[in-house]
Amino acid sequence: MQEHAENPGIAGAADALLLRPVRLGVDTHHEPVVVLRADSPVCRAEGFEAHARIEVIGQQRSIIATLNILVTGELLRPDEVGLSESAWRRLAPAEGERLRFRYAQPSDSMSHVRAKIYGQHLSESQLDAIIADVVAGRLSNVEISAFLVACAGGRMNAAEVTGLTRAMVQSGRRLSWPHPVVVDKHCIGGLPGNRTTPIVVAIVSSLGLVMPKTSSRAITSPAGTADTVETMTRVDLSLDEMRRVVEAEGGCMTWGGAMNMSPADDLLIRVERTLDLDSEGQLVASVLSKKLAAGSTHVLIDIPTGPTAKVRSQAEAQSLLHALQRTAHAIGLKLHGLISDGSQPVGRGVGPALEAHDVLAVLQNQPDAPDDLRQRGLQVAAAVIELGGLATGQAAFDLATAALADGRAWSKFQAICRAQGGLREPGRAPFTHPILATQTGRVARIDNRLLARAAKLAGAPHAKTAGLWLGAHVGDRVERGAPLFVLHAGSQGELAYALDFVARHPPIFHLED
Amino acid sequence: MQEHAENPGIAGAADALLLRPVRLGVDTHHEPVVVLRADSPVCRAEGFEAHARIEVIGQQRSIIATLNILVTGELLRPDEVGLSESAWRRLAPAEGERLRFRYAQPSDSMSHVRAKIYGQHLSESQLDAIIADVVAGRLSNVEISAFLVACAGGRMNAAEVTGLTRAMVQSGRRLSWPHPVVVDKHCIGGLPGNRTTPIVVAIVSSLGLVMPKTSSRAITSPAGTADTVETMTRVDLSLDEMRRVVEAEGGCMTWGGAMNMSPADDLLIRVERTLDLDSEGQLVASVLSKKLAAGSTHVLIDIPTGPTAKVRSQAEAQSLLHALQRTAHAIGLKLHGLISDGSQPVGRGVGPALEAHDVLAVLQNQPDAPDDLRQRGLQVAAAVIELGGLATGQAAFDLATAALADGRAWSKFQAICRAQGGLREPGRAPFTHPILATQTGRVARIDNRLLARAAKLAGAPHAKTAGLWLGAHVGDRVERGAPLFVLHAGSQGELAYALDFVARHPPIFHLED
Repeated sequence: MQEHAENPGIAGAADALLLRPVRLGVDTHHEPVVVLRADSPVCRAEGFEAHARIEVIGQQRSIIATLNILVTGELLRPDEVGLSESAWRRLAPAEGERLRFRYAQPSDSMSHVRAKIYGQHLSESQLDAIIADVVAGRLSNVEISAFLVACAGGRMNAAEVTGLTRAMVQSGRRLSWPHPVVVDKHCIGGLPGNRTTPIVVAIVSSLGLVMPKTSSRAITSPAGTADTVETMTRVDLSLDEMRRVVEAEGGCMTWGGAMNMSPADDLLIRVERTLDLDSEGQLVASVLSKKLAAGSTHVLIDIPTGPTAKVRSQAEAQSLLHALQRTAHAIGLKLHGLISDGSQPVGRGVGPALEAHDVLAVLQNQPDAPDDLRQRGLQVAAAVIELGGLATGQAAFDLATAALADGRAWSKFQAICRAQGGLREPGRAPFTHPILATQTGRVARIDNRLLARAAKLAGAPHAKTAGLWLGAHVGDRVERGAPLFVLHAGSQGELAYALDFVARHPPIFHLED
Repeated sequence: MQEHAENPGIAGAADALLLRPVRLGVDTHHEPVVVLRADSPVCRAEGFEAHARIEVIGQQRSIIATLNILVTGELLRPDEVGLSESAWRRLAPAEGERLRFRYAQPSDSMSHVRAKIYGQHLSESQLDAIIADVVAGRLSNVEISAFLVACAGGRMNAAEVTGLTRAMVQSGRRLSWPHPVVVDKHCIGGLPGNRTTPIVVAIVSSLGLVMPKTSSRAITSPAGTADTVETMTRVDLSLDEMRRVVEAEGGCMTWGGAMNMSPADDLLIRVERTLDLDSEGQLVASVLSKKLAAGSTHVLIDIPTGPTAKVRSQAEAQSLLHALQRTAHAIGLKLHGLISDGSQPVGRGVGPALEAHDVLAVLQNQPDAPDDLRQRGLQVAAAVIELGGLATGQAAFDLATAALADGRAWSKFQAICRAQGGLREPGRAPFTHPILATQTGRVARIDNRLLARAAKLAGAPHAKTAGLWLGAHVGDRVERGAPLFVLHAGSQGELAYALDFVARHPPIFHLED
């Protein structure tokens, strides 16, 4: 319809718009960021402004990135563009490659998000498109935030939660097992020291159930199950290695992060955490997508409930359990719930190696093993045994107790660790410092959240032996001058830092006369 | 309750946690960003991860910033922290000052946002807290996104829209005038070339109405009113200078950005634009907060409506007008609406200087002045005259027409420009290139959005003389080979870039036989 005629100097103009990629070495997490000079011909020609979403086009690949603009200083030369680590990884520019730029086209998935904001429900294919764009890095954190908020506050119906769960499974790898019953467990929300998983895996696989357990590393807590198990054996197994362990022993304890199952989950959780948003629908999809992707058929959900736990009331726990069961049913998972006491930490150790010592003490039936951790391990194992169809009620509990007491669980644990690469002894921290009771009294309550912060400041989980050791639990009577807990750290500096935190905050232990 | 005893090495540990600020020169727009080395003691001790929100504490000031982490390269030394421009501006570190860091405390305003997400309504004091935190830079873009989405899709009731409007006014400076009637106008959504404001100010202030007009620069369009007026006179007047102009001439045409009125607005609009979110409540608060802050009492809202305009249907225009009137009433503004034709560009020029030439032609009653712009200027001026109480209906239109025809408006315009610093001639671009019709036919429609993009790529608004000149309007018959429009650019490169865009996109003019 209209003529473009001769076009003076397009080639010359285009050349000036090709920039040389420079790796800045800056981790902006998932969201790719690029930095352009304000005086670059690209910025001027496109009218780019800081914070714009732009498309960065290489010879092989293109990405959508958030733009920062260099207004002063010599970070970049005029013909260069700076790339964040995520931008660099996704573009993987070849030697000598030049990049070009334009405003990002509006994405279909954001039009679905807007439809949701305006009150429509999302179909499964719309949810697929959104989750695929999240995983591909095509949505910014600002856009992911919009999606999460549009779905929060009970705005997802049951079909949407199911659709989101399936979309999250589809976005990653899905394992399958040649067994009709594959059991699994998951604990909602952190209770410091509540490290039942290695005990449960050992007990139930010693009884013949198949439990190919993948766990996560800590996100906000002082230790994830994978962090703790890593102090005793290798956890970063490939899928093939994991299969061989499960084939040989019926169970495993590996790090799920190596498997790329439900990769959308981590990305959504990061933004949810920034917003401190608790969305039941998102939580259900997050938990169940990982279980479905892991190839589980029967899942036990442990919901510790208490005033400083993630789930704070029985009503909240029941509502969550109901939502989990509804979606589990829709996607073909059998799910049982266990609403447990979340009022205080479990065991003595908090931190990867310290928790591993507790786990080993329980499995080895040591006389000083923490009985609360032992009882919880048995309780969860019995629930998994019942779910797996081996026995019900007291009989299931008796089966679990016998397997632990007669050493079968400990033998199985050692066998699994050998199959994963060998059993090793968790270490001990070089620096410790006790926090002492300033009065005599009974422990009325313990603040789980502050306790976890203190353990993290001491270095957990990145320093494997760091964390803290509990000298007392709720209900215990302590004498003035006795240790309430002992901080463990890998360096004098981190120890000092944790002590400073404890000194500057309200008491973690509340004592009554 | 608990003892902290002696604390080994806190001082030493604390020293290592103080870092030297380095200005990176990177504009991340409003959101402060800091970069820490992954191996810095701060990152390790606090367990900071990329994308965390952290508090950065100086001797005088502290800010909340988003964390990026340097994982490779030599951008920073171990004792340094990199600051984005917004972080640097807000902290303004003194020579030799050292900064410390901790996780940002959860903000009260985000707990209000979460309450809104969960379905509660926000009180005026809660909205005040949110807007104050937006302006102070304490909320990240991810958090602002959550606020906007929680309020979008009709989730704000009338009281909340009013509360938001008041909160936005409170967050900035508010002007006041010693006149009972202060008229103003605002146009919703861009129609290329629709530059009626200078014409309206000239007409109505020549008739004795007080119209202290502040305008914005372009955000997404090829020209804002302030950009256009700036090619004819000075617009960055201080408040005192503006007062003197209004006292002398009854009207002015200045840039509102210098006044710090409703500073929250720009920040919210940036994130809304990223999300491409059109929220009626936000739009109402945005428009009316600026008018209230400017001290206006009577406001005319022009709503161009058409398929490629911002407001696309009569129903949408009516709904928006109703919402505007409801809130205007609540905050004590008298508001009239004018739903106008938004089907095609207005005048001949698109771009700051090109539009100024059209404005001058109309004011000077030149025979070749674009009649569509003249008619629209008269229509809006008549509506303002009626709103200001000088006359009604045809009489108001006749007043406006007479003031324009007999040169009073042109005299007033020159007087205002002189008072603002002198009248100057808008320039002409050194490079032009016509886009020719490839067939003979009648112009059936023009795509406003693509046309605006082409003008921007040619350099508007940063190059004042850049943009495009329209050779035809809808309904005009054009011969094959006649110019549909002519691109104007300040450089050969930008001209080439705009031509390339036109060549690669669907036709902007649609011709019919």
